[in-house]
Amino acid sequence: MKIGLDVLGGDYAPKSTILGAIEAQKSLSGDQRLVLFGDQEDTIKRIAEAGADPSLFDYVHAPEVISMHEHPTKAITQKPNSSIAKGFEHLKNGEIDSFSSAGNTGAMLVGAMFSVKTIPGVIRPAIATNVPKLKESFGILLDVGANADCKPEMLNQFALLGSLYAEYVYGIENPKVGLLNIGEEEEKGNALTISTYPLLKSNPKINFIGNAEGRDLFSDHADVYVCDGYTGNVVLKLAESFYVVTLKKGFKDDFFDRFNYEQYGGSPILGVNAPVIIGHGISSPLAIKNMVLLSKGMIESKFIDKMKTAFN
Amino acid sequence: MKIGLDVLGGDYAPKSTILGAIEAQKSLSGDQRLVLFGDQEDTIKRIAEAGADPSLFDYVHAPEVISMHEHPTKAITQKPNSSIAKGFEHLKNGEIDSFSSAGNTGAMLVGAMFSVKTIPGVIRPAIATNVPKLKESFGILLDVGANADCKPEMLNQFALLGSLYAEYVYGIENPKVGLLNIGEEEEKGNALTISTYPLLKSNPKINFIGNAEGRDLFSDHADVYVCDGYTGNVVLKLAESFYVVTLKKGFKDDFFDRFNYEQYGGSPILGVNAPVIIGHGISSPLAIKNMVLLSKGMIESKFIDKMKTAFN
Repeated sequence: MKIGLDVLGGDYAPKSTILGAIEAQKSLSGDQRLVLFGDQEDTIKRIAEAGADPSLFDYVHAPEVISMHEHPTKAITQKPNSSIAKGFEHLKNGEIDSFSSAGNTGAMLVGAMFSVKTIPGVIRPAIATNVPKLKESFGILLDVGANADCKPEMLNQFALLGSLYAEYVYGIENPKVGLLNIGEEEEKGNALTISTYPLLKSNPKINFIGNAEGRDLFSDHADVYVCDGYTGNVVLKLAESFYVVTLKKGFKDDFFDRFNYEQYGGSPILGVNAPVIIGHGISSPLAIKNMVLLSKGMIESKFIDKMKTAFN
Repeated sequence: MKIGLDVLGGDYAPKSTILGAIEAQKSLSGDQRLVLFGDQEDTIKRIAEAGADPSLFDYVHAPEVISMHEHPTKAITQKPNSSIAKGFEHLKNGEIDSFSSAGNTGAMLVGAMFSVKTIPGVIRPAIATNVPKLKESFGILLDVGANADCKPEMLNQFALLGSLYAEYVYGIENPKVGLLNIGEEEEKGNALTISTYPLLKSNPKINFIGNAEGRDLFSDHADVYVCDGYTGNVVLKLAESFYVVTLKKGFKDDFFDRFNYEQYGGSPILGVNAPVIIGHGISSPLAIKNMVLLSKGMIESKFIDKMKTAFN
């Protein structure tokens, strides 16, 4: 197993990514190798300086950086030696089994779609994230930004992608799917959700439990919450800001702790032909470590095969 | 001044509404009368039982109740003796200067649009709500549910309606308007927000400061946040659920306190020819009191005239 990691992605890269990689490596077995994409010489130097053994890692020299505000498509094509472009080149060629980065989200999305491509039958990939549940554990929310405008058929597919992710990567049996909406009744909502409801209701591959309102998101109402990428992104950033407030105010609590993105590692792009994970821009070493372990989990669970079968 | 109040609206009506009316009345001057819509005999009896003087109030006998889950349009037409139907009849005839209720939101919206009607030039009214700011005070968010699907021109009008409300009812000078969106840059967003941005940018009647992300909602980024009613409703209910969590956990704080809907009284329907306010279904006496005082503030500020002039 070869787990690809972009060493240059994220606000605190490469320091944070390298420290995270070192921690993650300790949890890997002998046949599981971390492949680091970045400035090879610098990476090796930093690993040694941190007191770790550079020979425990594989390297691909890719010294260019795609910064957070670059145009995704342009950056990918104009910077073939960037860590993200190189990562997807290797992912496409099967030289690595997964690729993750805390760098430019758009470049990760474009890179995934142009290299390993969307799974046949999937209209558009979606980005999923974890949302904490009040009592324990967490749910999955998607899409959180890959598709600002959605069609009902896309939301119906996101429901299945989210269900498969919850089931096979997190072991949530027969995950309950809720449609993020503004009212409990079937006829409530906007044009998109009203048209989506009957599709979800008649989809035999998911366990649809009906509409979920904003207030249900942290409850045990559902395990998978489906919405368009505009709404999901607004909701995600709002929830994050609330968590930041509780941190600043010094309110410690199990529930608030479950908002911490570090423990989830990152947000996978569901619906593409390989495990691809986008980390939070501010990823700490712990977040990077968990992003690597999530990659490992996605490879081991043969999640991509599950998606391919479901959309066959 | 005649301030109309539905005594029968809300989960805890009529007890909560009558106690709230009694408290509100203490803040009114001699020429300001509360007009109570409900079962007249029962209302008078309850006021006396609470130790207040029933002669301080005016009454309109309207014993029928439109419950929370009735179909708005049907209920309004089939229950002419309901407190909401009677309220709007009196508002239309100029016998009261404002009408508010913690009852069926849809019936309030339909009632307002069919009786006092939308202000000429306004495409669709919007429901506004208060969102607390981290440091102090609060901002205005709209639409939070009147229009699940919106056109750019509607959002452009909501920006003006919200600005007028912030300025004339809450005294916020030159209120900053933010477009709720998923990215800071002008070109980011979904089809609706991308098309709305240039309209807001070139609208000379508002102080547009650009996009606002989910994480900006509680900051001092803007005073008025504009979005479609689907998104606004999801955001509102999510924020409410956060507040409920902090209450349950016993986390007391000035900021969290500002989430308490009771202090704001209710959500006005902006863009109709009279002050109409919808209270939270669970309105307490304090919330009802503040809904009456908000009605008074909307009448005194001649807010309706300000809207009419702005859309002329």
